[in-house]
Amino acid sequence: MTLRAVIKAGGSAGVDRDSVADLVADVARSDEIVLVHGASAETDKLQAALGHPVETVVSPSGHQSRRTDRRTLELFAMAALGVENFLYTEKLQARGVDAVGLSAKDGKTIVLRDDYTGTVRAVNVPLLRQFMGPSRVPVVAPLALSTENEAVNVDGDRVAARIAVAIEADALLILTNVAGLLRDVNDPSTLIAETTLDEAERFAQGRMKKKILAAREAIEGGVGEVVIRSAAGDPNIRTVIHG
Amino acid sequence: MTLRAVIKAGGSAGVDRDSVADLVADVARSDEIVLVHGASAETDKLQAALGHPVETVVSPSGHQSRRTDRRTLELFAMAALGVENFLYTEKLQARGVDAVGLSAKDGKTIVLRDDYTGTVRAVNVPLLRQFMGPSRVPVVAPLALSTENEAVNVDGDRVAARIAVAIEADALLILTNVAGLLRDVNDPSTLIAETTLDEAERFAQGRMKKKILAAREAIEGGVGEVVIRSAAGDPNIRTVIHG
Repeated sequence: MTLRAVIKAGGSAGVDRDSVADLVADVARSDEIVLVHGASAETDKLQAALGHPVETVVSPSGHQSRRTDRRTLELFAMAALGVENFLYTEKLQARGVDAVGLSAKDGKTIVLRDDYTGTVRAVNVPLLRQFMGPSRVPVVAPLALSTENEAVNVDGDRVAARIAVAIEADALLILTNVAGLLRDVNDPSTLIAETTLDEAERFAQGRMKKKILAAREAIEGGVGEVVIRSAAGDPNIRTVIHG
Repeated sequence: MTLRAVIKAGGSAGVDRDSVADLVADVARSDEIVLVHGASAETDKLQAALGHPVETVVSPSGHQSRRTDRRTLELFAMAALGVENFLYTEKLQARGVDAVGLSAKDGKTIVLRDDYTGTVRAVNVPLLRQFMGPSRVPVVAPLALSTENEAVNVDGDRVAARIAVAIEADALLILTNVAGLLRDVNDPSTLIAETTLDEAERFAQGRMKKKILAAREAIEGGVGEVVIRSAAGDPNIRTVIHG
């Protein structure tokens, strides 16, 4: 049976692109896959190299994000489209996958927050579907278009969740640089193999909070399960989240 | 009557993106348009800022190009996809055009030269056609895929010419930072309003030689006319080339 899944490749340092591409090329032979990627480490590098240092903002609910003015957005676009999207489409094509690079701004609508970031309101499903199929994978950068038709950046995990809901995916797989959700953030031996959304929210800290928020959006939208694991690690070492 | 045209927006300093976007949005209301853009000035800036200086190579036939090693290709991708393609799709969307950013590597095959550059062998017409229509414009970055499935950069004028031939365009419009072809390169009053390919080849110098080469490829492939003019200038000040 063909499954349908969204794979989110984290943009943090330590996410191995070749491992992601190997996995995507393998599962795309039988399953329908959309690859969504982040770009945070590459954006950090560009902000440092081009003299526009990173500033972090924390929302009242404790979610951290990059303060994004217009120049930051432009550097994020360079990292997301010019580095990550470029390399992932190239690596997939080298593995025999007909990969087409897209930006979430090719047909998304978002709600503008107080800066050049936003949350996704609508997904252009027909556009995505025409690039999905056996060994055909759309590669989506987390840049969206505001209601004023201006580009904004959007959280990659939440873009992946919204796309998973929109295409009625069976699963959302979040590949990152940690093994999964830990009961004690300082003790890797406390990995939670399987859990519910409510329990996951109790244990999540730091950057993991946003992944669990994305997991909630996916599962409440009808996605069967959300899996969080390391891009390069043993696929059996992971956290599976159900509703 | 609906015309079909490829518009090439030069990547040199002095090509005004807003003027290009205004023109494309205007003609795309009635005509079928593909926009192809360059990225040379933005690549120059990135090579300087990120410590990988530009080197120029000259072919035996006198055509200049950027020496392109893998790092140069990656910086070119950042400029082409992350700056130019991003800004053009955003500017077109702001003007009511359903613009989708594509890379020529989404479905092109090329012949590899001696470095990470190449010439186009095939164009993915079905991919382009599904984004063409009233106020719908594919925006194509000049990155292609080698026969070994590795990304390479390709000359934007020649990509535009090959696409024009492949989609059976009526015209190729090359928007650059000069008024057109001059009989005497040092005398702007010697602009050639209308000419043949053979005459154009006699007068072309420097960067103009590659545009005339692209014009030859377009016209010999069946494109009715090639127009070269300034992106921002009076549309009546231009060089029109016929077979």
